Amino acid sequence: MLLHLSTWQEVEAYLKQSQGIIFPIGSTEQHGPTGLIGTDAICAEAIAHAVGEATQAIVGPTINVGMALHHTAFPGTISLRPSTLIQVVRDYLTSLVKAGFTKFYFINGHGGNIATLKAAFSETYAHLEDLQISNAQLVQCQVANWFMCSSVYQLAKELYGDQEGSHATPSEVALTQYVYPEAIKQAPFSPEVGTGHKIYSAADFRVRYPDGRMGSNPALATPEHGKQFYELAVKELSNGYLEFLNAE
Amino acid sequence: MLLHLSTWQEVEAYLKQSQGIIFPIGSTEQHGPTGLIGTDAICAEAIAHAVGEATQAIVGPTINVGMALHHTAFPGTISLRPSTLIQVVRDYLTSLVKAGFTKFYFINGHGGNIATLKAAFSETYAHLEDLQISNAQLVQCQVANWFMCSSVYQLAKELYGDQEGSHATPSEVALTQYVYPEAIKQAPFSPEVGTGHKIYSAADFRVRYPDGRMGSNPALATPEHGKQFYELAVKELSNGYLEFLNAE
Amino acid sequence: MLLHLSTWQEVEAYLKQSQGIIFPIGSTEQHGPTGLIGTDAICAEAIAHAVGEATQAIVGPTINVGMALHHTAFPGTISLRPSTLIQVVRDYLTSLVKAGFTKFYFINGHGGNIATLKAAFSETYAHLEDLQISNAQLVQCQVANWFMCSSVYQLAKELYGDQEGSHATPSEVALTQYVYPEAIKQAPFSPEVGTGHKIYSAADFRVRYPDGRMGSNPALATPEHGKQFYELAVKELSNGYLEFLNAE
Amino acid sequence: MLLHLSTWQEVEAYLKQSQGIIFPIGSTEQHGPTGLIGTDAICAEAIAHAVGEATQAIVGPTINVGMALHHTAFPGTISLRPSTLIQVVRDYLTSLVKAGFTKFYFINGHGGNIATLKAAFSETYAHLEDLQISNAQLVQCQVANWFMCSSVYQLAKELYGDQEGSHATPSEVALTQYVYPEAIKQAPFSPEVGTGHKIYSAADFRVRYPDGRMGSNPALATPEHGKQFYELAVKELSNGYLEFLNAE
Amino acid sequence: MLLHLSTWQEVEAYLKQSQGIIFPIGSTEQHGPTGLIGTDAICAEAIAHAVGEATQAIVGPTINVGMALHHTAFPGTISLRPSTLIQVVRDYLTSLVKAGFTKFYFINGHGGNIATLKAAFSETYAHLEDLQISNAQLVQCQVANWFMCSSVYQLAKELYGDQEGSHATPSEVALTQYVYPEAIKQAPFSPEVGTGHKIYSAADFRVRYPDGRMGSNPALATPEHGKQFYELAVKELSNGYLEFLNAE
Amino acid sequence: MLLHLSTWQEVEAYLKQSQGIIFPIGSTEQHGPTGLIGTDAICAEAIAHAVGEATQAIVGPTINVGMALHHTAFPGTISLRPSTLIQVVRDYLTSLVKAGFTKFYFINGHGGNIATLKAAFSETYAHLEDLQISNAQLVQCQVANWFMCSSVYQLAKELYGDQEGSHATPSEVALTQYVYPEAIKQAPFSPEVGTGHKIYSAADFRVRYPDGRMGSNPALATPEHGKQFYELAVKELSNGYLEFLNAE
Repeated sequence: MLLHLSTWQEVEAYLKQSQGIIFPIGSTEQHGPTGLIGTDAICAEAIAHAVGEATQAIVGPTINVGMALHHTAFPGTISLRPSTLIQVVRDYLTSLVKAGFTKFYFINGHGGNIATLKAAFSETYAHLEDLQISNAQLVQCQVANWFMCSSVYQLAKELYGDQEGSHATPSEVALTQYVYPEAIKQAPFSPEVGTGHKIYSAADFRVRYPDGRMGSNPALATPEHGKQFYELAVKELSNGYLEFLNAE
Repeated sequence: MLLHLSTWQEVEAYLKQSQGIIFPIGSTEQHGPTGLIGTDAICAEAIAHAVGEATQAIVGPTINVGMALHHTAFPGTISLRPSTLIQVVRDYLTSLVKAGFTKFYFINGHGGNIATLKAAFSETYAHLEDLQISNAQLVQCQVANWFMCSSVYQLAKELYGDQEGSHATPSEVALTQYVYPEAIKQAPFSPEVGTGHKIYSAADFRVRYPDGRMGSNPALATPEHGKQFYELAVKELSNGYLEFLNAE
Repeated sequence: MLLHLSTWQEVEAYLKQSQGIIFPIGSTEQHGPTGLIGTDAICAEAIAHAVGEATQAIVGPTINVGMALHHTAFPGTISLRPSTLIQVVRDYLTSLVKAGFTKFYFINGHGGNIATLKAAFSETYAHLEDLQISNAQLVQCQVANWFMCSSVYQLAKELYGDQEGSHATPSEVALTQYVYPEAIKQAPFSPEVGTGHKIYSAADFRVRYPDGRMGSNPALATPEHGKQFYELAVKELSNGYLEFLNAE
Repeated sequence: MLLHLSTWQEVEAYLKQSQGIIFPIGSTEQHGPTGLIGTDAICAEAIAHAVGEATQAIVGPTINVGMALHHTAFPGTISLRPSTLIQVVRDYLTSLVKAGFTKFYFINGHGGNIATLKAAFSETYAHLEDLQISNAQLVQCQVANWFMCSSVYQLAKELYGDQEGSHATPSEVALTQYVYPEAIKQAPFSPEVGTGHKIYSAADFRVRYPDGRMGSNPALATPEHGKQFYELAVKELSNGYLEFLNAE
Repeated sequence: MLLHLSTWQEVEAYLKQSQGIIFPIGSTEQHGPTGLIGTDAICAEAIAHAVGEATQAIVGPTINVGMALHHTAFPGTISLRPSTLIQVVRDYLTSLVKAGFTKFYFINGHGGNIATLKAAFSETYAHLEDLQISNAQLVQCQVANWFMCSSVYQLAKELYGDQEGSHATPSEVALTQYVYPEAIKQAPFSPEVGTGHKIYSAADFRVRYPDGRMGSNPALATPEHGKQFYELAVKELSNGYLEFLNAE
Repeated sequence: MLLHLSTWQEVEAYLKQSQGIIFPIGSTEQHGPTGLIGTDAICAEAIAHAVGEATQAIVGPTINVGMALHHTAFPGTISLRPSTLIQVVRDYLTSLVKAGFTKFYFINGHGGNIATLKAAFSETYAHLEDLQISNAQLVQCQVANWFMCSSVYQLAKELYGDQEGSHATPSEVALTQYVYPEAIKQAPFSPEVGTGHKIYSAADFRVRYPDGRMGSNPALATPEHGKQFYELAVKELSNGYLEFLNAE
């Protein structure tokens, strides 16, 4: 059940059965010479919609711009500052907790979002308690990173070994190829790739990772791989969501 | 050209031809007993994608949550506070102006966004000048509300007269029916409808507009109407975008 | 009844009769070669004081600096950022709603304030509901722009036609001449005037409107015209205030 | 020279002679049973205008709402939070420093503003240096409290002794009586008056100072006294301003 | 009793006896050629710990970075902006008031903190009232500046006369010598010293006070003096704390 | 070399050799029935000082209050909100980067700080680039959690097995016993202990972990263990710091 394709009365009915909601969250950032700028949002959204279907959960609109400040030296990247993203999450949850939602499951496609999301959850729990909303104490948030699912991780290792890298990875590129076969990109890139550098400023990042890849070889990606990743992630996160939902 | 389906190198190439970008912006809010919660984002996105195609403009990811505080007494509504939305817009533009974009065209599906967007533009122009970014002085933003296109307005009047209303209107419902025929909703609602009240707090809004409609009769909507609205809006806003782009 | 010339006990007594208050809001910004920098505040204040008298409403202190970022390339202009003005409005209303005021009527002299004021109202309604102040749900705000009164608009058209323009207009200059006859300015200016350009950054504005006028010929203004505008605005806005006050 | 009665071209000319500007700052807060709510703004404005005349300085619009949170349990009081007032001052100075002003002299009528103003000055100096505005290093701000002028203080002691108190004082009431003789108030009040309590929360303040006076007997005030205070303050602050202006 | 060396159960027991807590607050800023960067925090902490012991009060962790923007042109200085420090104080008190603390006594070692602390207290009182915490109305904060104790001031005058100055003073240097005899510094400095200049921007400060001293001769300091200052301050502030605690 | 025991001229000299600085960061929060409220700050500070000595690095003042919102239902806990801590870190780094520091190594004693610190680093890199500080691109931050050192982790496993738990752990308690043998606490506590629950709101946390421990048995701690942990952490983090410092 997709929130944006529902009516408020359907949401009202849903809330009598469940107080859970899933949010896909991605990023709008460079993904190397052949990866789509929307990769993280595309992956998170596709998986989240399927998880919603599998678990009869409502799925909110995709948060397609996240915390990608370190990628902003590449054109096309859009980032929120962490302090902005914290307010965004706070506002989302304040709206929804007042309506009765208490379980928020963020299916995340971007490593760079994790820290800020966790900070946002802490800020929001305290904010909701300060507002003295009746069910504030029950509110629970969780980040579920599809690319860190053990089944996904294992398949990526099998298929790509070290060439999986950590950004513009063949696994995420594969998943976007599966979702958007019409947008499979070809571009030449060097066999050499930046790797192993920590992430600091945007300007520094671009120097260290000149074409945007971090240790990855996205040329290994295929749509068929993408389908496999998708199915593994959907299965694992569907279980993850139900476990989260049913936990006290 | 959709930003999320492009690579950063394609964006780099695009920027040599054009510094314009289109952003669909909607809202996630109740739209009466039969309107989709995502109505405003769905309409803005569909139109913006077609405008992008018609004008060879790049289209950014849809901003699907906007300023809908007055709808938050209905479950399923999500709103940013105006002060949050201002920061969001500021962050988007700061990222993109650094990359070379200067012309920002927001195709908007929600009247409640207009004031905050305008405030955000003012805040952002000043911020960018303060940052002393080289092209700050050239930055231009415009809100284009599809539902205020004269051709759209006229058709709505013809088809629905007074029953168009001002929220959960048959015209926007029709457009979503055209885009998502699988999500056409049926629900009983009273022939009586709240109308003519100003908008204040969320609690007050719900009292005055108990089922969420504002003077509208969305039962009049058909997917065929939706197609007409869509085509009119795409045509008018394509011209609008090109005019904006080519203006000094 | 002017708030600043009242005692708190008089306010306490007033609140038993009425929960309404009028705020003049203007701007401190260039108004072309002969217009006063305080034009918008002067007009709003003069009209608001007379409206207060006519309707026995209390009138708060004039907000004489507003949102004028686009005029800041001209010396003497002072502007709040929209995000600051939102906090200012929020603070004003929080103070006054706690005391029992619920109806806030802003008589506005500056088009550039409108968007931010509306954003501020939305932000404030939600804030007051979050504070769980008992009468939060009753709070209502309205912006009333004296220069958009139909009677004012019509007279300006009659007297000045196209030369009314949209900034540093003869009508507002006339009104300041009526209020401050001792501050009528003479200065040469070109018969040519910038016109029709949209408003973007401050630097851009100054290029397009080099002497600060927007399509206007303020030389047409006379104090006698000013008196007429004043009287029309006071009459129309007195009715407007009473209607607002008496609406549910 | 009053900023609001000047044109931008007059300001431009002024800036060639002087980079100084005076801002009256007051408060909108209860002043006991007979004191005007606008007392602090009225006094600051009247004195500042005369100082401006005496020293040929430009005087900005009066900041008539300040930091009065501790008075907000009395109806009619309006307060900014300190964090809001800091942003307001920052915005004012950012606008004006860009135009060439560097010396800011705040003639203040309210003790409660002092701490926040000083904090705001510190915040603003750093902000302007961060913006790398060319004359940021030259910017200087000063608060001049008219009620702390030694001549004023001495006269108050002579006339009223201990009955001067520290809020709703006969000296400030006298000054408003001189400025607004038509608004001299009569109201019974107890010979007993709260005194000597520190200032904490608004609710606490009202308990300790039930009619709003702090140790004062405003019944001693006369318009003639007001004239004396006015003249002493104008003289002392005119010297103060010139000294400030001419200091390196 | 030091908060950081206590358990939460000890705090719970303490709160049954007392609702008071002492916070040392200093600064991390240049203190001339021989003064320690931590001077203000060191002095405040040493005194506060002894006051806590003398009065059986709990002492919180030292706030060792304060408002020192004007010293930031000297390496090693760290400053919060006033708006940040206000949020810090707000957060501290919100945590502790919820637990039952109501009396907050800040033993302060840095003049530059005073204005911002006072602004923070005002902001916090209002915030706590807005949160509707049960004991919000009882919350009281006080700044106690050890260097402004009358006994301290008098001794400094006796020992150093005019050479006490106002920053990097022999009295504070002496106190740090007493606390950290192992960190007594020797460095040549000019007999000439900047004096009498007001404090504006950081860049301006460094020009006027090139070695960081303000009118002081820290070479006069001895650890024995430091012991005297320490004992006087502890005694005077112990009384001050008890008075504050026992006041209604 | 401790920053607070240095002069600004010593810092100036240091900066010619190194641009690195170490910050201990802890928390002020409940640590179960026998753990000190300052545990996290105490551990981080003790280790950081020794690392500084071993590596000749300068060590800044301890950040002794961090992000501990989830512990605020226990008296004595103090927490910053994440959005406040982000501003604090931003302010620290802005001060120090202007002075020439570029390498910031945070020795952290509290798991709850990690997410917010990472968010703060991202926010700060972008802020410094926006300020166009010359060395902004070189700025690098790292969090080093002493309790996650592999040598520490291994010893804890050996000594305590599962009874190490994840909060109020015997390892951290042992380290505080080594540093403050005079503050070793005895208190009865149940052999049963909350374990395995995720962390959400403060109220929820207290229900799940009624005495504050998370799966730990702090009774196993001894000062001798503490010494071992201390030495392992100092050794491992000294290497860590040097590696960080010497990395490009």
